[in-house]
Amino acid sequence: MSNLLTSFIQTNQPSIEQQMDVIIKEIKAPVQLKEAMAYSLLAGGKRIRPLYTLAVLEELQVKNEDAISVASTIEMIHTYSLIHDDLPSMDDDDLRRGKPTNHVVFGEALAILAGDALVTLALGIIARLENLTADQKILLIDKLSYAAGAEGMVGGQVLDILGEGKSLTLEQLEEVHVNKTGALLSYSILAGGIIAKASEDVMNALQKYAFHIGLAFQIQDDILDIEGTSEQLGKTAGKDVLSEKNTYPSILTLEGAKEQLQKQYDLAIEALKVVNLHEGLLVEIANYITKRTK
Amino acid sequence: MSNLLTSFIQTNQPSIEQQMDVIIKEIKAPVQLKEAMAYSLLAGGKRIRPLYTLAVLEELQVKNEDAISVASTIEMIHTYSLIHDDLPSMDDDDLRRGKPTNHVVFGEALAILAGDALVTLALGIIARLENLTADQKILLIDKLSYAAGAEGMVGGQVLDILGEGKSLTLEQLEEVHVNKTGALLSYSILAGGIIAKASEDVMNALQKYAFHIGLAFQIQDDILDIEGTSEQLGKTAGKDVLSEKNTYPSILTLEGAKEQLQKQYDLAIEALKVVNLHEGLLVEIANYITKRTK
Repeated sequence: MSNLLTSFIQTNQPSIEQQMDVIIKEIKAPVQLKEAMAYSLLAGGKRIRPLYTLAVLEELQVKNEDAISVASTIEMIHTYSLIHDDLPSMDDDDLRRGKPTNHVVFGEALAILAGDALVTLALGIIARLENLTADQKILLIDKLSYAAGAEGMVGGQVLDILGEGKSLTLEQLEEVHVNKTGALLSYSILAGGIIAKASEDVMNALQKYAFHIGLAFQIQDDILDIEGTSEQLGKTAGKDVLSEKNTYPSILTLEGAKEQLQKQYDLAIEALKVVNLHEGLLVEIANYITKRTK
Repeated sequence: MSNLLTSFIQTNQPSIEQQMDVIIKEIKAPVQLKEAMAYSLLAGGKRIRPLYTLAVLEELQVKNEDAISVASTIEMIHTYSLIHDDLPSMDDDDLRRGKPTNHVVFGEALAILAGDALVTLALGIIARLENLTADQKILLIDKLSYAAGAEGMVGGQVLDILGEGKSLTLEQLEEVHVNKTGALLSYSILAGGIIAKASEDVMNALQKYAFHIGLAFQIQDDILDIEGTSEQLGKTAGKDVLSEKNTYPSILTLEGAKEQLQKQYDLAIEALKVVNLHEGLLVEIANYITKRTK
């Protein structure tokens, strides 16, 4: 990892975690619910999404005190989706980020409700920010609702479940990922642009970059499921192959998946060049995503 | 039921249902997800919450084209809470509004995701309305997030689960209900005031009315579980007694619960008198709620 990115992450990752900790501490709710929410929020993780929001602001050289809150709400939505995806009736995962999953610790009912509380809180926090205009907040909520809902993340999870046990085409697999993981990752990048009041050109470039880097992220996830170890990943490795899941390697072969990864990476960087953002954090994060081992 | 209320319901209930039908038809999502969402949304029900929003506007003599959408989003949030509450890991109910519950028809995974999609969509719809100012929309989202989240409905459901098998005091039981059902019901009334840009006096009166009528609603629910039949209720009657649930009758006796119902009703009507809203729909709905048989 480059010095630039290392220093950026070392500065911002703790701020994001501290902000989420404060958010949970401040809510007036049953302590068991708050514990369940905090458990998954503060269980570690790469924090790629909130870091992306803050990276866009840094690259556009805009400071806004609410950026850290917006970034945190995106991680809250991501965490809620992980809690629900891990449930016995969905992916039935016992291990996440190296720790027992939420329902293993708190039971299914509380896990479902912790997820419900996180998504509802995330949208409300944006509404209550004080350093953004009402129009900016409305736009953030509007786009977040799409990215996280039936037309984005939730819809993608449904497609993923429906695709189990079936052979998907590359196009169908891409549709799953564009929705299931791509939509929220894209949103985290666009949110930075919305907070910075970026020009239309920059927004378009960010959108293209986000689309391709979102796919690259998922392809690398699929590759890591084959090449990584459970210890590295903090979750069960090799599970995709075992459950005959549709992945890029299963459709394209491992070699083909790696070529596809490179292609998406190149397209992402190309988009940045158009608006002169091709040196700095956004490229560094792209490098990290495509070369990470966990 | 009075002619005034009958005619109000006959006009508005179909509009609410039609609006929800249109909302689901318009989203671009997997058809199975849309079916699961529509199934519970359009499974009937009293539609008390959206009717309340519209009734407040009618009483304040304000028309706004977006009122029906806001009203519908509240019913969407209510429906999502029912879908999740009915899950096997929560109340484990097979019957709701006289029909098999969502997870019985679509499976647990899709039921959880249909709920997730409904809450996310509801908040996004408000952000996208065109006949309200950005500040009105922000206020609606802000209050809805509180009413539906950890500090309201979700928190109340957690308290309800934690209270199972324990003897609650009247105060503890009230805390459950103020959060679990009261918060969203109150919101539906306040939302009408926000859309109508009501004065502070009117908002205060609506808030008091909403608080007391919310409790009255729950007390009557508890009474009906004892006095009603499954056929009337469209759900299993007598379940509270069977599961030794904490209810107003279990703490206060049936007679005491009926006295408490009358007391909350009186306080609700008193609040309306202060702002001269004590003749018309809001009183009629209060009468209906406290005298209903289903």
